[in-house]
This record gives sequence, structure tokens and C-alpha cells, in this order.
Amino acid sequence: MSTTDSPVVDSTDHVPPLTGRRIQICDTTLRDGSHSVRHQFSADDVATVSAGLNRAGVPMVEVTHGDGLGGSSFAYGFARCPDDELIRTARAQLTDSQLAALLLPGVGTIEHLRRAADQGLDVIRVATHCTEADIAAQHLTEGRELGLVTVGFLMMSHMLPPDRLAAQARVMADAGAQVVYVVDSAGALLPHQVSTRVAALRTALPPEVSVGMHAHNNLGSGVPNALAAAMAGADHLDGSCHGLGAGAGNAATEVLVAALDRCGAETGIATQALIDVAADDVARICAGNLPALDRTALLLGYCGIYSSFLLHARRAAQQYQVAEADIIRALGRHRPVGGQEDLIIDVAIALAQRRQPS
Amino acid sequence: MSTTDSPVVDSTDHVPPLTGRRIQICDTTLRDGSHSVRHQFSADDVATVSAGLNRAGVPMVEVTHGDGLGGSSFAYGFARCPDDELIRTARAQLTDSQLAALLLPGVGTIEHLRRAADQGLDVIRVATHCTEADIAAQHLTEGRELGLVTVGFLMMSHMLPPDRLAAQARVMADAGAQVVYVVDSAGALLPHQVSTRVAALRTALPPEVSVGMHAHNNLGSGVPNALAAAMAGADHLDGSCHGLGAGAGNAATEVLVAALDRCGAETGIATQALIDVAADDVARICAGNLPALDRTALLLGYCGIYSSFLLHARRAAQQYQVAEADIIRALGRHRPVGGQEDLIIDVAIALAQRRQPS
Repeated sequence: MSTTDSPVVDSTDHVPPLTGRRIQICDTTLRDGSHSVRHQFSADDVATVSAGLNRAGVPMVEVTHGDGLGGSSFAYGFARCPDDELIRTARAQLTDSQLAALLLPGVGTIEHLRRAADQGLDVIRVATHCTEADIAAQHLTEGRELGLVTVGFLMMSHMLPPDRLAAQARVMADAGAQVVYVVDSAGALLPHQVSTRVAALRTALPPEVSVGMHAHNNLGSGVPNALAAAMAGADHLDGSCHGLGAGAGNAATEVLVAALDRCGAETGIATQALIDVAADDVARICAGNLPALDRTALLLGYCGIYSSFLLHARRAAQQYQVAEADIIRALGRHRPVGGQEDLIIDVAIALAQRRQPS
Repeated sequence: MSTTDSPVVDSTDHVPPLTGRRIQICDTTLRDGSHSVRHQFSADDVATVSAGLNRAGVPMVEVTHGDGLGGSSFAYGFARCPDDELIRTARAQLTDSQLAALLLPGVGTIEHLRRAADQGLDVIRVATHCTEADIAAQHLTEGRELGLVTVGFLMMSHMLPPDRLAAQARVMADAGAQVVYVVDSAGALLPHQVSTRVAALRTALPPEVSVGMHAHNNLGSGVPNALAAAMAGADHLDGSCHGLGAGAGNAATEVLVAALDRCGAETGIATQALIDVAADDVARICAGNLPALDRTALLLGYCGIYSSFLLHARRAAQQYQVAEADIIRALGRHRPVGGQEDLIIDVAIALAQRRQPS
């Protein structure tokens, strides 16, 4: 619809590269995006954004604490609203869109999953570190038994080469995942590295299992990484309005959909309406909290550090009076993964002690 | 140097794609970036940023009004400091970096060029709309006679297909340009479209003429567009600290250099030092004016509108009480080019009249 607005001509791709390709967008403003507001979305915020995304025709909307079901905790930060209320509120607005939730085994449990399903969840996305796919098995199996669409999330995918990442994807598919995502949790991948990973998964997985891409923007490549994934065979792409999310944030859904229009893909989304939802609803609700590609966010991508560590590092920097950037650079040498947030404190203390030898 | 910080492994590009490639970065914070501060950089600002870029090893620094030599005017906005003072101030700091200036024939004249050369300019970049390369001829010729490095800038490159863009590049090369840039003034190109354009120029130009890329971020693709250009054969890439610049801004120099490290390219820049210059100097000086990929900036890329129109459209929207976004959408149907800023007023007036029929 929207490419008619466009004066962009290009004789070499007169047929845009994704012409006729159906791309399924999942908007995670109300899940990953909640990192940007320290998990303080109100029920009204969730209702407003869910209604807008549903109205714009976004087919899948993810809602929970930023760290998934059960994430509201001392370790990950307490949410303003419990997951139950967030899910019920979104469910009431999502007359056409599917409702998705994230679950990190160990943070969330089978019990959280059953309760979310009772409240009308359509899709469960089970996330593990990219070398630990096997711990997703019981949650994926339970999701299938509950009649949910099941998605596997391979976090920190930059830490494995394509062939080994594809083997882990196969573990998730064998456990019942209907879609397996390459998740660039650190925003450390560039488009050519996304292409090789998605292509490796596409080759390794049976045709009925789809491939997805969840991109972060720490190297300024969120949207093009998602496009590169689609061109390499991914059918599912994540985004969040204004890129709200951990670290430098995600691929911005409204920008990604505009770029997909350019490429001839079919998302079923009303692009101009989505652009207005991002600008009028999300930007208003999150004014002052939109993600920025600042020094610390860039260093997360450059050093390959889990994006969710950003706010933890910011707190530790204040508490121990050391520089955020020094914490990230030091963490890079430890190659930590999600769940090792305690290492941030250790590193900050070590930096503080090095500053003042006793 | 810096890829040793990196846990990113990828068996399929164990040899990073730009290994051994020498990439020449031109930082345009103090030229294109001055759009972000409405051309109000002070001499102190220019001295601070020039000194930082020189210290970090950035090989080329562009300084002038955002619309180039002679841009300070009623039509384009008056600068706080005249070009002469900006150039003298930067020259005093750039002990190692080359000093570049932009010139749009018609905005700047041969006389401006001679004065800038007298004040120690090393590089002149002559910019025309992508269909009008021939009007750059006399300024490129004069630049060569003055002993300057001469660069041709093909603005709004999304409006021509690769083959016709390459023919225009050949016109600039024949007139003496030593480098010809694909300039995505509207931020309307995606990486695959940059690749085809740069490849077409690389094929059409003699080997001694280099190809460059100047990317804007209106579709969230600034840094990956610059990377795609390098992979397609461009040796010269523009950036600005924090992406400061017209529209959604440019490719952020510090992010681009970090990404080029990842790809094995040699820029001669101290990446961590550059990241600190962007964060400690530029972000402080431009606090509150860093570019954002908001609705209007996105629509510029989506509709293919010259990025410098953003602030003009913002002013017209306030003056005539119409929505910025409506102005951009209406402009898209006219396919205006740089220099047709008066059309913004016409469109705003028409929108205002349509709102209140007399």
C-alpha cells in the first residue's frame, strides 16, 4: 500500500527483494520495551499501546516483565503491575492480534506458563542462552500441550558460530518449537553475520519450523539486521515502537515495517497508522525514556554484553562510584551471559578497590 | 586493535569481510551536524570537537555551515560564526587530520572556495543534485587548480537507478573529482540499494577515482548502509558523532568505526578514544539537540524527502498550524530536491487553507 508514497526507484531491484514474502511481526514494546521504563508500565499504558498495535494490524504483541514471566523480583526489578494484570489488560484490547509472553526457564516456571495460558495467552516464547537450548524442552512441551504457539529464543546468538547455533536450534525444534529465533541480545551482530546464522538455521530446521530474528541496536544495525534475516529466510521479525528495549533498544517496529514496505514484503500492518501509534501513544507514555545509542549502549554491542545489563551497570556505577563504561569494558573480558548479573557487582567492586588501594 | 575486546566469533566469516581494507573516514559533525544545532556552533565548540577528532586519529574533518560554504543566509539560516572563523578555528586544531568543506554551487561560489583555500582547506566536496553533476565542473576544476583534494557529492542518490547514477558520477570524475560519493540525502536507501549503486559507480569510474558513501539514518540504516558501501567497493565513508545531522542524522562515526573494527577494516582511528570524544565532548555540547528517529524523520526517509527540509517543515508547521507529518507526506507527492525549500511553504499554506475553507 505504502510504497506508492515512494519516489525510490532502482532499476536493479525493480522487483523489490522481498516481493510477495509474508513477514510476521511481533511487537515487544510491552515486554522488552519495559526495560526502558524499569518495568513500570501501568495497566493504562498497556491498554493504550495494545489497543493501538491491534488497531494498526500488528499480528503479535508480547507483554510481560522485561525479563519475562516471573521476572518481577529483587534480582530483575519489581514491575509496577503483576504479569497477570498485564496479560489480562492486553488480552482485553487484542481483538485481532495474538498475545505472546516470554519465559526464561529458571526465572519463570511451568506454573507461570499455565497461569498465563489460563488468561488467554496465544504464544509462549521460551528463551535460553544460545548454548543451553535443552533446558527449554519441558516448557516448549508444556506449551504445546496447552495448545499455544511455541517459539524458541536463542539468546546471545553472537557467541556461537552459525553451524553450532543451528544445532541448538534443532534441539528446540525437536522439543516442539514451531519457530526458532536468532536473538542478538547484545546487539553485537552485523547484517552479514545475521545472514549466515539465519541461513544456517533455515538449512538445519525442517521446513515446517520457521526462523525468526530479534535484533538490538547497540551497533546501530537493528532494522537492517532484521531485513538481512528476512532476506536470508526468516519469516518472523521482532520490533518495538521507537526501539524501546534493553541496551540501545530493539529494531524500531515502525521503521522496520516502513523498510519492509520498501522491500515489497507483506506484513498486513497499516504502516502510517503504526507510525502514529509509536509517535502519539508510545512516545508520549515513554517521554524521557526512549533508548539512546550512547557510549554505554555502544560498548555493550562492541564488547558483546547482554543488553539487559545496562541498567544494572548504571546502578552499580553510581553505587560504587566507577564509570559505567569501565564496568562494561571489564565485563567484556569475562564474557558473561544472561543470569550472571551478579558479576556486574563483582566487577564494580574490583574497579572501585583498584581506584583506592588500601 | 579493538576486535580483541570482542567475543564475537563466526566460523563463516573467520576472516572478517573487510580484512586489510583501508577505509578513509570523514567526520561531518561540524558541517552536517550543525543542522542539529541550527548552525549555532561557537568557535569554542569547533575547537573542542576538532581537537578531539584530531586526537582520536580521524583522518578528515568537515567544517562549515550545514549547507556548505556561503550557506549562512536568510534562506538556510544564519550561522553563529562565519565560515572563515569556523575554518580558521578548526585548522588550528587539525595538526594531523585533513580539513574539508562542502560547497553547493549556487549557495557557495568560486570566491568562497578561494577564501577557504587561503585559510588552509585541504579538501573541497562539491555537491549537486544527482541529476545535475555537470554544474559541479567549474568548482571541481578550480579546486584542482588550488591544489585541493576534490570530491563530488551526488545528493538524493535514491532518485536515480544505479546505471544513471554511475553516468553522473562519471561526469564528476571527468571534471576532476578524485572521489565521488553516493549521498543518501533523504535517508531513503536500504543496504541492498546502496550496494548496487556503489558497485555501479565502482564499475563506471576509472580505478584512480575512489567511491564514497554519505548515509542518513531516516530508515534506521545509516551505519549498515555505510558498511554495505564499503563491502561493495567504497573506500571513503562519512559519519558524524552521535549521528548529528539533518533529518534523523548521519551514520554515527563512533558506531561506524566500531562496526568497521568488527569487519576487519583499517581506519587508523583509536576507537575507544573516538567513543569518548562523542560522549564527553559532542554529547555535552549538543545536549538536547541529538537527532532522533521520530515520526517526521522517518517520513522523510519513507517519502524520499531531503533531510535538510526537516527544520524548515517544523517551522512551517508552527507558522501555519498544520502537522509536520502532513507537510512531509504532501511533499512526497511533489518529489522536491534540495534548493526547493520554498515548496515547503506552499504545501503548508495549501494544507492550512484546505483545513479552513473560506
